[in-house]
Amino acid sequence: MKRWLIKNGTFVTMNEQLPQFQGWMAVEGSEISSMGEGVPPEEEIVAASEVMDGAGLLFMPGLINTHGHAAMSLLRGLGGDLALQDWLQNHMWPMEAKFSGDDVFWGTSLAAAEMIKSGTTTFVDMYDHMTRVAEVVDTAGLRASLTRGVIGLCSVEAQNAKLAEAIAFAKDYHGAADGRIRVMLSPHAPYTCPPDYIVKFVEAAHDLDLPIHTHMSETAAEVQQNVRDYGCRPVEHLDRLGVFSRPALLAHAVHLTDEEIALLADRNAAVSHNPVSNLKLASGVARVPELMKAGVTVSLGTDSAASNNNLDLFQEISIAALLHKGVSGDPTVIPAAEALRMGTVYGARSIGLEGVTGRLKAGMKADFIALSLNKPHFVPHTDYVSHLVYAASGADVVHVWADGKQLMRNRELLTLDEERILSEAERCFRRLRA
Amino acid sequence: MKRWLIKNGTFVTMNEQLPQFQGWMAVEGSEISSMGEGVPPEEEIVAASEVMDGAGLLFMPGLINTHGHAAMSLLRGLGGDLALQDWLQNHMWPMEAKFSGDDVFWGTSLAAAEMIKSGTTTFVDMYDHMTRVAEVVDTAGLRASLTRGVIGLCSVEAQNAKLAEAIAFAKDYHGAADGRIRVMLSPHAPYTCPPDYIVKFVEAAHDLDLPIHTHMSETAAEVQQNVRDYGCRPVEHLDRLGVFSRPALLAHAVHLTDEEIALLADRNAAVSHNPVSNLKLASGVARVPELMKAGVTVSLGTDSAASNNNLDLFQEISIAALLHKGVSGDPTVIPAAEALRMGTVYGARSIGLEGVTGRLKAGMKADFIALSLNKPHFVPHTDYVSHLVYAASGADVVHVWADGKQLMRNRELLTLDEERILSEAERCFRRLRA
Repeated sequence: MKRWLIKNGTFVTMNEQLPQFQGWMAVEGSEISSMGEGVPPEEEIVAASEVMDGAGLLFMPGLINTHGHAAMSLLRGLGGDLALQDWLQNHMWPMEAKFSGDDVFWGTSLAAAEMIKSGTTTFVDMYDHMTRVAEVVDTAGLRASLTRGVIGLCSVEAQNAKLAEAIAFAKDYHGAADGRIRVMLSPHAPYTCPPDYIVKFVEAAHDLDLPIHTHMSETAAEVQQNVRDYGCRPVEHLDRLGVFSRPALLAHAVHLTDEEIALLADRNAAVSHNPVSNLKLASGVARVPELMKAGVTVSLGTDSAASNNNLDLFQEISIAALLHKGVSGDPTVIPAAEALRMGTVYGARSIGLEGVTGRLKAGMKADFIALSLNKPHFVPHTDYVSHLVYAASGADVVHVWADGKQLMRNRELLTLDEERILSEAERCFRRLRA
Repeated sequence: MKRWLIKNGTFVTMNEQLPQFQGWMAVEGSEISSMGEGVPPEEEIVAASEVMDGAGLLFMPGLINTHGHAAMSLLRGLGGDLALQDWLQNHMWPMEAKFSGDDVFWGTSLAAAEMIKSGTTTFVDMYDHMTRVAEVVDTAGLRASLTRGVIGLCSVEAQNAKLAEAIAFAKDYHGAADGRIRVMLSPHAPYTCPPDYIVKFVEAAHDLDLPIHTHMSETAAEVQQNVRDYGCRPVEHLDRLGVFSRPALLAHAVHLTDEEIALLADRNAAVSHNPVSNLKLASGVARVPELMKAGVTVSLGTDSAASNNNLDLFQEISIAALLHKGVSGDPTVIPAAEALRMGTVYGARSIGLEGVTGRLKAGMKADFIALSLNKPHFVPHTDYVSHLVYAASGADVVHVWADGKQLMRNRELLTLDEERILSEAERCFRRLRA
């Protein structure tokens, strides 16, 4: 197994002990094998088949994007600045209805290229044609938690067919690509899936021992609808249906009462906060400081490029840190280190990968990125965590590794053909719009 | 005079007619001489001493940053996530008190490097040691509106000396650097300058025919103080003192009543909206949709890198477009084109340069930038204005020109020594902190 070494690097580990240091890190196969301050010990140098000089580079865990629909990158920039229902009904859905497996493949490839180029090494994807998404993940070398998102506003036969497809995908792909692919089960949302259908997902999740991922309380309107249709708000509704008897990841969770926050904390459910998408679609501002204070794990997602309109998780990290200060009036909420944990450690925790990725630590997977520090916006070198949160962007990332394999070197993608992807994605869009 | 030509480019002009087109643009000396769709006419090609192929590039006006304190880039990342007074009194002021002209020179150089690299060609700067700032502007080739910001909480002698310095700077530098430098007069804020002192600035501004730039209503606390000390809110206070008898640019303007908004519109005062700084310092969210609806010119500023923590105006444009949708609940407010105007056309209007810069148009100064379109986050090529606002960052800028002169080529600075600036800025910071 190849063993190699980085020396002279600046490391932001996200560990509680030794969160930052100047030093070295060794990688063996897919894992971080050892690391330390100062110069590497002689035996590490001897054991390494290759030594990389990390001077001028900051190494940190690859970012974790916990909610998105990668293939929708094909719809970036389509119908912006519109009211939600107009945007969905007149721009998104007519295009998505035409998506073939090929469109999903190239749209997801486009997203994968963008994510690698902006420092994301693990992502959650909820969409259709998931075998094509898995194909991209396998080739790209990324880590992903994939899930067939299912809307249940259809006949029982159609419902059963979709559920069967989601289960078949889970059986075939959970643990695929050397374990880089994990699977979750996804009733799309409480307002798009009848209660008895959601219960079937809960049962399947128990049978297969999988987590559940769903949209919840993104807009005030869907919360009102839930109260009208089911006599309670979405958190209580999902709790009654047994969703929180499984590890659960809830996307958005913008509109919550104190009682709902307490219930989420009690049930150990995680939230994927999508601040840019929530702002752009005018859904509102999630109560993130309150969620975190209650002990809920809050991670970050971009949602799709259609409502963002990029997949740069550094932007979500920055906006998560900024937005809640401005809205709460308290400049001490979500300090830089906490925002960075939302994009790394808490991301891993949200999807059951806390011991696997999201930190730089011996024994964990070698999912990490390197940023160039020789940029005006990183000077002076006062506080690297602050710079990563408030000054960086995905464009500062120069190298990316996942599962020990290099995916980008000097901003050149090594596992994907970027030029072809841009051209095929453009071609797919032109055909869909025709 | 050198005349040269760009062909095969994508142009986003910010003009009402022909806002976007594929075509060509000719530059003669410091000005845009002509432009058009399709291929350039034969006589343009003959007249050009050089023809640049603009394929794959998007050309747009250089961005205009209408509020900042460039030298404070030396304090980037110092004391973040703190309450405002703690941050100011224990971190900013003790360091700034030690600033020498040399520190201002290198701090401003650092800011200039960052601004050029992120596509800004015109900036407003309010600080001290302004002759050193002017020196940087002259060398960098940027356009700037400079002003000695004066705090009047001192003896009358000290007040008079500061005012005299501001006036002398105006007399010496207004119109300097081939007209690229303009000067404004700046009482720092209503809460840091006694009323009679502000009146002296108004008189001087009339004598010298200069605009006034000041901070106003950044925090709720300073508004309350104004009411307590002067019996009215800041807009009425400044109006009584005659500030709006001059062209006036007000930084922040976060806390405004409907009556104040109407008064600002009536007086034709402009506002520099600084969304990132306002969020980071938890000052609040300015009423930008209401200001714009009332007809107030609203442009964008980064404020200093100490409270941002970068000078990427693309980030301000994006956050201006996103924030007000999320907070108002209306996804149609500040659409992409309007956000882009805030960073260009409205920026120019805010500082009296509307006929000079902020648009691509024959007869206007050749202040423009080129972004590479061959990036995953710009695909598909649906809507360039949307992409510039919601997907771009300053790192996408590859070339920069101001006043007809190229300042950056393929991300390499041509007028500034980037490597030396980073090292000198780091050195200044270490010495200040020692």
